[in-house]
Amino acid sequence: MELSLTSGKKITCSTDTSILEALKLAGIYLTSSCGGKGTCGKCKVIVKSGRVDSRSKIKLTQDEVGKGYVLACRTFPSEDVLIDIPKESMLVVEGKVVTGKSKDLQALLSSTGAEIKPLTERTVLQLPPPTLDDNISDLERLKRELFSKGMACLRVPFRFMPDLAKTVRKKNWEITLSTIHTDDCDEIIRITSGDKKTPQYGAAIDIGTTTVVVFLIDLSSGELIDVASTYNSQIRFGDDVINRIVHATEHGKLKELSDTVISDINNLLSIIRKNHHIDVETIDCVVAAGNTTMTQMVLGLDPGAIREEPYIPTANAFPLAFAGEIGIKVNPNIPVYAFPCVASYVGGDIVAGVLATQLYKKEELSIFIDIGTNGEIVIGNSEWLVAAACSAGPCFEGSGIKCGMRATEGAIEDVKINRETFEVEIQVIGDADTKPTGICGSGMIDAIAEMFLTGIIDQKGKLQKDVSGRVRAGENGLEFVVYSGEGRDIVLAESDIENIVRAKAAIYAGFSTLLMEVGFTFNDIQKIYIAGGFGKFLDIEKAIMLGMLPELPKEKFEYMGNTSVTGAYLCLLSRKLRSEAEEIAKKMTYLELSVSHSFMNEYVSGLFIPHTNIDAFPGVKKLMTK
Amino acid sequence: MELSLTSGKKITCSTDTSILEALKLAGIYLTSSCGGKGTCGKCKVIVKSGRVDSRSKIKLTQDEVGKGYVLACRTFPSEDVLIDIPKESMLVVEGKVVTGKSKDLQALLSSTGAEIKPLTERTVLQLPPPTLDDNISDLERLKRELFSKGMACLRVPFRFMPDLAKTVRKKNWEITLSTIHTDDCDEIIRITSGDKKTPQYGAAIDIGTTTVVVFLIDLSSGELIDVASTYNSQIRFGDDVINRIVHATEHGKLKELSDTVISDINNLLSIIRKNHHIDVETIDCVVAAGNTTMTQMVLGLDPGAIREEPYIPTANAFPLAFAGEIGIKVNPNIPVYAFPCVASYVGGDIVAGVLATQLYKKEELSIFIDIGTNGEIVIGNSEWLVAAACSAGPCFEGSGIKCGMRATEGAIEDVKINRETFEVEIQVIGDADTKPTGICGSGMIDAIAEMFLTGIIDQKGKLQKDVSGRVRAGENGLEFVVYSGEGRDIVLAESDIENIVRAKAAIYAGFSTLLMEVGFTFNDIQKIYIAGGFGKFLDIEKAIMLGMLPELPKEKFEYMGNTSVTGAYLCLLSRKLRSEAEEIAKKMTYLELSVSHSFMNEYVSGLFIPHTNIDAFPGVKKLMTK
Repeated sequence: MELSLTSGKKITCSTDTSILEALKLAGIYLTSSCGGKGTCGKCKVIVKSGRVDSRSKIKLTQDEVGKGYVLACRTFPSEDVLIDIPKESMLVVEGKVVTGKSKDLQALLSSTGAEIKPLTERTVLQLPPPTLDDNISDLERLKRELFSKGMACLRVPFRFMPDLAKTVRKKNWEITLSTIHTDDCDEIIRITSGDKKTPQYGAAIDIGTTTVVVFLIDLSSGELIDVASTYNSQIRFGDDVINRIVHATEHGKLKELSDTVISDINNLLSIIRKNHHIDVETIDCVVAAGNTTMTQMVLGLDPGAIREEPYIPTANAFPLAFAGEIGIKVNPNIPVYAFPCVASYVGGDIVAGVLATQLYKKEELSIFIDIGTNGEIVIGNSEWLVAAACSAGPCFEGSGIKCGMRATEGAIEDVKINRETFEVEIQVIGDADTKPTGICGSGMIDAIAEMFLTGIIDQKGKLQKDVSGRVRAGENGLEFVVYSGEGRDIVLAESDIENIVRAKAAIYAGFSTLLMEVGFTFNDIQKIYIAGGFGKFLDIEKAIMLGMLPELPKEKFEYMGNTSVTGAYLCLLSRKLRSEAEEIAKKMTYLELSVSHSFMNEYVSGLFIPHTNIDAFPGVKKLMTK
Repeated sequence: MELSLTSGKKITCSTDTSILEALKLAGIYLTSSCGGKGTCGKCKVIVKSGRVDSRSKIKLTQDEVGKGYVLACRTFPSEDVLIDIPKESMLVVEGKVVTGKSKDLQALLSSTGAEIKPLTERTVLQLPPPTLDDNISDLERLKRELFSKGMACLRVPFRFMPDLAKTVRKKNWEITLSTIHTDDCDEIIRITSGDKKTPQYGAAIDIGTTTVVVFLIDLSSGELIDVASTYNSQIRFGDDVINRIVHATEHGKLKELSDTVISDINNLLSIIRKNHHIDVETIDCVVAAGNTTMTQMVLGLDPGAIREEPYIPTANAFPLAFAGEIGIKVNPNIPVYAFPCVASYVGGDIVAGVLATQLYKKEELSIFIDIGTNGEIVIGNSEWLVAAACSAGPCFEGSGIKCGMRATEGAIEDVKINRETFEVEIQVIGDADTKPTGICGSGMIDAIAEMFLTGIIDQKGKLQKDVSGRVRAGENGLEFVVYSGEGRDIVLAESDIENIVRAKAAIYAGFSTLLMEVGFTFNDIQKIYIAGGFGKFLDIEKAIMLGMLPELPKEKFEYMGNTSVTGAYLCLLSRKLRSEAEEIAKKMTYLELSVSHSFMNEYVSGLFIPHTNIDAFPGVKKLMTK
């Protein structure tokens, strides 16, 4: 039986295999945050011809059903079928760099003053062939040559011994060593015959609770070859880390959870490799940053004790793993460096973020906030670092928002509403003619701030029916039409807005409570670094208007994008920054906000736009009275 | 179909499986130096009843055939069969310690002044359970506890991380760590819950070209639990290392050779374990000593370059291997320490021997000689060490000698011939009523010296027909009947005597040439340490009479038995002696005797008993004239 795509591609399929699975087997990955359980409604495809057995219509509108939309995970072909895959259903927009730019990354690396010294280095050696007068063993010959090059301590794991004699002799005593520097010693991770200095690539990975991002990097130049990202398929076991730990421990399914996220990483790596025709053997190392639970799950470590008092991770600084030990599909001997974590609820992603901001080198007091599924805030300078966590939820990454999506091609990233006509002007990630397929974090913040300013929503975030014609009754209450396209409108429902308001309240409460705890005020802060999956840009003024960020001069804010993967990039390329990351992790102390009464009070006060205490937002107050 | 033994045991068998194989499957191992090719004639069994298909009678006498002897490797049962296994055909005399005694070993260890610090140490830790105030990670908790016990540097391979959280919690935070000290750091090789301090065992192994010996040691006391030894089954690929290298490289059968000797080691270990009811998980480490080629083969390293100019081994100091990497059947994570070698033709067995003699700590000039398949000689003191090799052949280990056997139960180890009656008095290894089943190295030396003194052989080693009635025509020329028993006589054939004379000539030539090269004479030597598989005792006077050893005062000689396994024993138990072994290997220089003209001259002169230059043996000369 055949499944044809409107793109022309043809795939063999059967009545037992869902369209989602059939596409996956053919290397076409659809968005599916619930992992194919038929609950997220993200894997829509349009059946153009042929009979199908469609077992669920959840999350599809009447209109969509009429147009032939089905959920790929719940639909099985009954005969030859022709389908069209809408852009918004594609898991990854292949070959498009939308998070971070190579030049920015290389500039950041060079601004730290660190030279390029990748996690794995390649050294080409021309050994002098042995003679009767110079008859030391092959291993001693190798060590002598390295010693003369300044590599005084070389650790050779036994597994390299069986092939050593053959390898050194194969290309007339020219060899390439891949080594990794640990414990003041260089350890061999690969030996090959001849000159294999380049190409040499590495992967920097952000393992978010909601999103997984992979950067493929040329290790000799630091150039970003490509980016790929996807929802973390573990979402099907729960939106937050707690639910996933419950699943891993109570259901004994740690391996399933680990395999799920490793499979996401493998899919992303494979997509980039195929697009750029990169041989898997040229990938020499992997650096991954994630929160403590995600890090443990990627490494296959039982996270059970993280959830129960006294909340203990297996490790904060992880021994180096090898790809083969955790299932990443590259050469099994290549090292996987997991970013050091601070505590059960402040992970390697935050250490990576602090590394990316370089705030730990400055005298001035700075705040770093990473708005992911959990919001984590760090305050400090070159003397001290204190971290706290506030649960913001995954809405800014598109999860739990009806038309929400990650900041990839087709996402509305910028929204303006005309004060008089209420006409909406949008900007979409992609080329000039890219049609919008959803709305990402920065678009949501813009839209809600604008809706608030124009009176489309009130201070509680409730939609006002009579202000704009774009407010309409949706299938689950009122909704605001951000964009009306052919077949599918992009809306923000009242429940979406409630979600976003709760998230911004948690973030602001985190800021103010942490400051209070360490005895400072917003005015003592010289710089606020913001990280998160909002998209390329974050309109700071709109975020202040929403009451997510404190009202401080705009120049004090710096939006950094995804700093978890940026930090991983830096560590992939610099030995100096790796040791700085380890220092950051040791230096940072964790403050538990949930035991603070102030946090809940602040949170409740933040459920207003911009805030119950409007005097904290004088500029917004002025705008409101206008 | 059933194969019954006269011992009462019954084994299932089939017409497709040789009796040798059927016995092996039932855990009964026969001597089979050719590896079951029907050429060595060692695996004789007696068919008492039942029809068999016996495909070769090679090496069986008419008399034996008449009595029902068959070669087990070439005989297949046609119906239910009852067989008797003669003692001399048993590979290992189970449960009998015949090489070295535990008390001697423990005394030697204590005489070196080294305390017991086994290769693998076990540490029992009671960790303080975590609390909200003491909430460091599991790994940090472990490291903190070890730090407080003085273990400042701990390396934790990633493979221990996935189970760490569970293991520490299982027995209420009590754990046992097995660690190995390398590169000034302790590396974890096993973590278990609860107190598993004892029992803890280790294996010391001598991998000889001809013989493999395994000691099982209690690591807490240094006590020798048991010994097992066997012919190295690689013998079927050739008697000496050169032939085996040819087989490994020209026939591409390195793996076959490695597997063969590893299987010998596994058989021996398994026999000891079963006899003493020792759980495989209580074995924590293995130390193996062998010549450079044997060491490389045990480790699975291609020995090809050892054979070809400029004769290069893959390594002399080997990275630590794990049992699982080379196929030794204990816990795959336990370390296998291969003794450091000096050069292609001076191996770890010699370093182990020098370690056992402790001559490298003394000012006086000593000689150490290890008479195995290859004879290696070391001369030196605390200042310097020079080694050389002379090819003696495996005859003293029983190989290539018609009734030769290793020094195990049943071996004639001492022979006296009455000067008048020519009656032969023998001593046999074992209990008072043990019947002799062959003759071992020390017995051969005794017998030939006595035969020479009594005129049964002449100075060239030729048997004299008319001197003793014990000289008779055998199937392949003249032979001397050492012992006449029921059914099977133990003889020394003229060809056996020629073999032994060639061997002793090579050894004496080695001594004298090496001394000449380093500018000393026999009189400068204070001590001569002799090692080899001769048996419990070596009659030094007889060995001098034979012209194998130089005529020096008897008190200058010390017979040490198998020093390769003794050295392995010392390294298994002492960290200090391990580092001394590494120092010995680095310090020793190798002198190539084959390029010396003197060696060949000396060798030819040595083909007489005791020597062409009879004046070098004034005592023997006096005896001869008597």
